[in-house]
Amino acid sequence: MPRDEVRVGIMGLGVVGGGVYQVLTRNSQMVAQRVGMPVRVARIADIDWERDRGFEVPQELRTTNAAEVYEADDIDIVVETIGGIDPTFGFVMGAIDSGKSVVTSNKELMAKRGAEILDAASDRGVDVEFEGAVGGTIPIVRSLKESLEANVVEEVSGILNGTTNYILTRMTAEGREYSEMLAEAQRLGYAEADPSNDVEGIDAKYKIAILAAIAFGQRVNLDGIHTEGISQIAPSDIDYATEMGYVIKLLATARRAGEQLDIRVHPSLIPSSHPLAQVGGVFNAVWVVGDACDRIMLYGRGAGDMPTGSAVAGDVLDCARNIISGTRSRVPCTCSGAASIRPIEDVETRSYVRMRVRDRPGVLGSIATILGQEGVSIESVVQRGSMDGLAEIVWIMHKGAERNLRSALGAIGQLGIVDEICSVIRVME
Amino acid sequence: MPRDEVRVGIMGLGVVGGGVYQVLTRNSQMVAQRVGMPVRVARIADIDWERDRGFEVPQELRTTNAAEVYEADDIDIVVETIGGIDPTFGFVMGAIDSGKSVVTSNKELMAKRGAEILDAASDRGVDVEFEGAVGGTIPIVRSLKESLEANVVEEVSGILNGTTNYILTRMTAEGREYSEMLAEAQRLGYAEADPSNDVEGIDAKYKIAILAAIAFGQRVNLDGIHTEGISQIAPSDIDYATEMGYVIKLLATARRAGEQLDIRVHPSLIPSSHPLAQVGGVFNAVWVVGDACDRIMLYGRGAGDMPTGSAVAGDVLDCARNIISGTRSRVPCTCSGAASIRPIEDVETRSYVRMRVRDRPGVLGSIATILGQEGVSIESVVQRGSMDGLAEIVWIMHKGAERNLRSALGAIGQLGIVDEICSVIRVME
Repeated sequence: MPRDEVRVGIMGLGVVGGGVYQVLTRNSQMVAQRVGMPVRVARIADIDWERDRGFEVPQELRTTNAAEVYEADDIDIVVETIGGIDPTFGFVMGAIDSGKSVVTSNKELMAKRGAEILDAASDRGVDVEFEGAVGGTIPIVRSLKESLEANVVEEVSGILNGTTNYILTRMTAEGREYSEMLAEAQRLGYAEADPSNDVEGIDAKYKIAILAAIAFGQRVNLDGIHTEGISQIAPSDIDYATEMGYVIKLLATARRAGEQLDIRVHPSLIPSSHPLAQVGGVFNAVWVVGDACDRIMLYGRGAGDMPTGSAVAGDVLDCARNIISGTRSRVPCTCSGAASIRPIEDVETRSYVRMRVRDRPGVLGSIATILGQEGVSIESVVQRGSMDGLAEIVWIMHKGAERNLRSALGAIGQLGIVDEICSVIRVME
Repeated sequence: MPRDEVRVGIMGLGVVGGGVYQVLTRNSQMVAQRVGMPVRVARIADIDWERDRGFEVPQELRTTNAAEVYEADDIDIVVETIGGIDPTFGFVMGAIDSGKSVVTSNKELMAKRGAEILDAASDRGVDVEFEGAVGGTIPIVRSLKESLEANVVEEVSGILNGTTNYILTRMTAEGREYSEMLAEAQRLGYAEADPSNDVEGIDAKYKIAILAAIAFGQRVNLDGIHTEGISQIAPSDIDYATEMGYVIKLLATARRAGEQLDIRVHPSLIPSSHPLAQVGGVFNAVWVVGDACDRIMLYGRGAGDMPTGSAVAGDVLDCARNIISGTRSRVPCTCSGAASIRPIEDVETRSYVRMRVRDRPGVLGSIATILGQEGVSIESVVQRGSMDGLAEIVWIMHKGAERNLRSALGAIGQLGIVDEICSVIRVME
């Protein structure tokens, strides 16, 4: 019997899963016209069918047993929107094993176990797609894998976490403390009760690892990625940054550095004229530099039921086309080998340093002398009026090795004239 | 004999054709790894082989006869980078007729004859791709056709012409006249000797017609698209706009308007906080609003050999994958029927109006009365000091039908107290 529809099963009807279900059902006629036959959600597995989700799911679609999705003979494409590694990894491998295409929005899964998953998919000749795992609705994965694939990519960077971008945007607008703005984000549902995954940069680390693997064709081990969150950013850092023409953002960045890759996640001072500086609130953006395309930025909502649902649904329709035309594994993983990630000490960046010092003659000179001895070159310095006998000095250092700066700051700390090195924030070039 | 490479022929080795050739040859090893076999430029047709292009083309690839590309048995994919309609249309139809996939960067061709070309491609079962025709290197065509295809698109708008954006950006930065900045753009090679295609908005019209057809799945007749260029924009308009928190850009826009489409190209006041307002110089950006993805912006170089070459090369590799896996026509044109384009008189927008009036009592009142009578609602008004007995009044009108504003301005012109209605510029909502 010739195929007359493509059947989709969803595992996990949370925020994103709910979005996928709504997008695919609401626009089903249009989708059927574009793809050439109906793409129907045929089964949904979730452990909780009591919760009010704001939309209805027909009784006959519901199951509490994921295996009824990932092992079912009458399902062609499995959407994984459960999140986490366990038991999700097993479910996804089960789906691949039974010859289904898989679409996932699970950044942790793809960052930690993506290599195994993509190898299994390649062996089995099925598709695994994951546009929704990075940048929510932003079409960055397909753009990197297809539209830009004739480029040698030099850099892929971005604002990849909406929670931290919301907090920093509000801190900048209001001049208020991190903790207050975090509390506001939690009230509004932009931050979770335990916000550490977002605010410590872990979520952004997963995402930049995925983007780097695609952009550079190398598998990326998360352990090598230096990661800092935003909890140490003070309103006065934001004030100084603004004054000097910068915006502070949590930047995830991956660049070629000779034979190595320079991949890291940390707050950065971004020049306010840079397109990434304009990305406010919960929005995300990805910045790509390639040898032919030059500079590209893709901007959009990095989270949310419908935005991420849009990305997942786009992947579902791509998988559906491949099933209909009998060409799965059309754009396979092309990673070859594991990336060597440059240790953070060897990375060269510009830096912003804010310190509180004794307000007495010779202090600036003593510090500047040590910086010079350690090979740290000063780009600009501002010293501000004293309080309680203390003065605040803000430095911007020229591009140099992180190792030298750390060593200089260590020595400066021993001088007995520095009360506190308050902040060290890298400056985007 | 099983296929062991995909052979590409290029017609037209100008700026973009040269970029395509360089991208595909320079990165050929990487490309072969990604696609699974070499993608080789096997023949190039151009009428001029004397010109120094800054790179070498092996003698055996050269021909002056396009038919040796588009009819050749040993060519799989034809890249059309000649431009224009005649003789290009015939060449492209010839290529389709002989079963080749076609990749083009020709916006005029796709906007004027795209329907026939895509119908022929569909009948013959070959691919026609045209990412390079809109927004240069920006991956907007594939994003609309694939990544966002589960969305009902509400709007696609953009800064689609680099020449006019360069001129307006420079006028804004320098406070100088249009004609001076045009001359500068010509000196720098950003504007042609005859700049009318760019500065009159015709180039942007082709591009928005193509994007609207994809986004709304309807064929778009160019004649229905109201088009204005930037030559009437005065430095004082830019000054007033800046003061009021706007940036003036040449905006191409397409939106759903009930059963009709509202498609137009004209200068617009864009709120300076809008992401499109930040797009400076020769860069382009496309703004998409969909029911699931919400707001997305894609930003990048809208022209140039390597940037557009990157987009064309991406399409070539997509076609190559389809040829290798035997699945051409994988993402066909899904336009159904022709769009009904809303006449500009019926379009509702906010408006900026600058006029010079006799500086005497009662003038503002008389004008405001007529505006009221014609149903034009005033949002704000500024009157500025007089010169030679004249005053300048700048109005922002609330959203209303263009028809009413035109009628009001006609009546105001008859009052005998208005020296000149200097500018009428629509304001982006």
